[in-house]
Amino acid sequence: MKTAVLITIGDEILSGNTVDTNSNFIATQLKDIGIKVLSVFTIPDDEQAIVSTLGKALEMADVVFTTGGLGPTKDDITKKAYAKFFQDDLIFSDEVYEHLRAYLEKRDRLWILEHNKEQAVVLSKASVFMNYFGTAPCMMVEKNGKYCFSLPGVPFEVKPFLKDQIIPFLQEKLELQHIVSRIVSVVNIPESILSETIEDWELALPEHISLSYLPVGTRVKLRLTASGSSQEMLNQSLENEITKLFPLIGENIVATHEDKIEKILSGLLIDKKLTLSVSESCTGGELAHLITSVAGSSKYFFGGIVTYATDKKIDILNVNPETVEEFTVVSEQVASEMAVGCQALFKTDISVSTTGVAGPGKGEDGKDIGTVYYTIRIGEEEVTSKLFLPHLERTDFMHFVSQKVLQDIVSLLIKK
Amino acid sequence: MKTAVLITIGDEILSGNTVDTNSNFIATQLKDIGIKVLSVFTIPDDEQAIVSTLGKALEMADVVFTTGGLGPTKDDITKKAYAKFFQDDLIFSDEVYEHLRAYLEKRDRLWILEHNKEQAVVLSKASVFMNYFGTAPCMMVEKNGKYCFSLPGVPFEVKPFLKDQIIPFLQEKLELQHIVSRIVSVVNIPESILSETIEDWELALPEHISLSYLPVGTRVKLRLTASGSSQEMLNQSLENEITKLFPLIGENIVATHEDKIEKILSGLLIDKKLTLSVSESCTGGELAHLITSVAGSSKYFFGGIVTYATDKKIDILNVNPETVEEFTVVSEQVASEMAVGCQALFKTDISVSTTGVAGPGKGEDGKDIGTVYYTIRIGEEEVTSKLFLPHLERTDFMHFVSQKVLQDIVSLLIKK
Repeated sequence: MKTAVLITIGDEILSGNTVDTNSNFIATQLKDIGIKVLSVFTIPDDEQAIVSTLGKALEMADVVFTTGGLGPTKDDITKKAYAKFFQDDLIFSDEVYEHLRAYLEKRDRLWILEHNKEQAVVLSKASVFMNYFGTAPCMMVEKNGKYCFSLPGVPFEVKPFLKDQIIPFLQEKLELQHIVSRIVSVVNIPESILSETIEDWELALPEHISLSYLPVGTRVKLRLTASGSSQEMLNQSLENEITKLFPLIGENIVATHEDKIEKILSGLLIDKKLTLSVSESCTGGELAHLITSVAGSSKYFFGGIVTYATDKKIDILNVNPETVEEFTVVSEQVASEMAVGCQALFKTDISVSTTGVAGPGKGEDGKDIGTVYYTIRIGEEEVTSKLFLPHLERTDFMHFVSQKVLQDIVSLLIKK
Repeated sequence: MKTAVLITIGDEILSGNTVDTNSNFIATQLKDIGIKVLSVFTIPDDEQAIVSTLGKALEMADVVFTTGGLGPTKDDITKKAYAKFFQDDLIFSDEVYEHLRAYLEKRDRLWILEHNKEQAVVLSKASVFMNYFGTAPCMMVEKNGKYCFSLPGVPFEVKPFLKDQIIPFLQEKLELQHIVSRIVSVVNIPESILSETIEDWELALPEHISLSYLPVGTRVKLRLTASGSSQEMLNQSLENEITKLFPLIGENIVATHEDKIEKILSGLLIDKKLTLSVSESCTGGELAHLITSVAGSSKYFFGGIVTYATDKKIDILNVNPETVEEFTVVSEQVASEMAVGCQALFKTDISVSTTGVAGPGKGEDGKDIGTVYYTIRIGEEEVTSKLFLPHLERTDFMHFVSQKVLQDIVSLLIKK
């Protein structure tokens, strides 16, 4: 199996100012073509650190990627480090400069060309992949049959570089084994019990299949990865193993093909021709955002409303002010009335509501932080649930609740 | 200056299945107490890799953190690797077991105690920090005056471990230099021009202050970091340097204290006593989600609506069907009418609308993917802008547009 090491370069990552999402993306892309990432090294914008990490990485793996440090500012020194490590010269490339000029001209930004001229300087022995979505090109240096790519740090430039240019390049150059993954999503069973329940099954897995547990909120994702020479054979053997899980934990399995809960839901809604709307308070738009992150969601998602202020729940969702007075705004009753109002407003088969206190600070009715009620209404039937998550920070709380709500819709739809 | 190395353990990170957010959080926390993260190593659930990386990390830095690999399943082997590296035995701790029992009892989950018993096994010479938000304790091993912490991988367990226990512990044990950072947010100027404009200022910075450029969408964040023995002196010298920036790029500076655009906006709205609502189409709830991620946003954010379907724009936001017919739903005119409707629905000083095509696939009116119109309405005045971002993937597109809209509200409010 071919291997890769990723090197993330940037003081801003090490200081915590920026979250590195590039390595995750690159790892996913490489996995799909059967290249295993052995390690990710995150290092500072420091010439010596870059040089020594490049050395180590090229010892370990067949392919090495660096991201970051290609900008036009003083703290970006990746190119210099490459020149030192590969004992090569940096030269001004007319071809790259012309590409840069055309790129900027097309965007009415020709006036910054002179300021970005430095980006046309590349290693003399590098192959250059042009950047169609930014100004820094990608350099590829081959050494002893290994490939080293220097990518910029901007995620939306990294993505097309990988998809359009580097993955096809690697597929052609390397003789790659096939690798296939499947994710089985399991709910309503703690990881430790799940592990015991499927222990015999796990021990009996064929050698070319590996298993990992990935807990996400209250769901556990079982990832099965198979590698071998025939894709068809791999798909078949994964299907066989997954089939054997059903007698053991069939009731807890909500999906065996899709991974993300919003995609699992998408498949179900399209399948059952059902429409959906959401009314959110404490999740503040994250539910709608999760749902609409799926391409094609406009087919079933008619809309959502965030009623943060109580009187908007009354005005727009027709929540009864007396209900609020009697039970407070964070209550089973208000959750239910919000769901009814939401269903009426958007005219959908399914509606959802959330009302709770994300914290910090006490909610307006003195309820403790971390309490949330949510209603899922399918046709005329509805289920209201409560969660109490006082240990979660604001954004984690919103995220946990949103995941759980979608997971519950999926469970309800599967039971039907 | 004290230093740290972070080790992220987990096949699920290397395969791209999970994004590592722990190292970012830990780095931020350490930065605040003046500990500099030198490197982050992401490695597989492999005993040999853990052992050798621990060795390297403890050579490099004063403090080492590992996250992950403490779960009760077979692929979690961090503890075994610790035992091997520190040449220590794993022993069953009655104290940890009792804590675990009490923790599970309180949550009505006592039935899983036996399945999680393994988590009461710790290194004989480790100090144990109890987990109040999960089942795996944190072990701390001291070696030659250096500290090595093994943390679980679940982010919402890692956060309180750091904040409540480890940071106070390190502050007490290590004699730490103070470190202070400030972020200056700059808009409407490309990084390369900015870099030239402030070059002399940058070269004249005192030695104890360092500068980095962090581009986020169309904004550039300048981070100034100062280290020294007096916090007061550091604050003063940062303030001095920032003041010198104003004659150079004052018009482009939107904030010098807060970092995130949604927090900058929050400060401005509270300051000016203005209220806000949003109506979203192509951003699908992300705007509302960003705004409500700020604690205290209920003071100024009255609500938001996601009108994904065109007829909901007409029904709920009073967009004129003739406008849609004449100009299509992705148009300046519809953006404007949505903002008017949103302001009326939520009765706020400011309202915002977005309408566009996030892709993939063509929009219902045949407009190209990546086009978006957005209106910002403040009182009776409004500004409608257009973006064309065909190169962005769906989620990046939504993210970019949301950031830009908030940035524009901030710019408009500052100009007023």
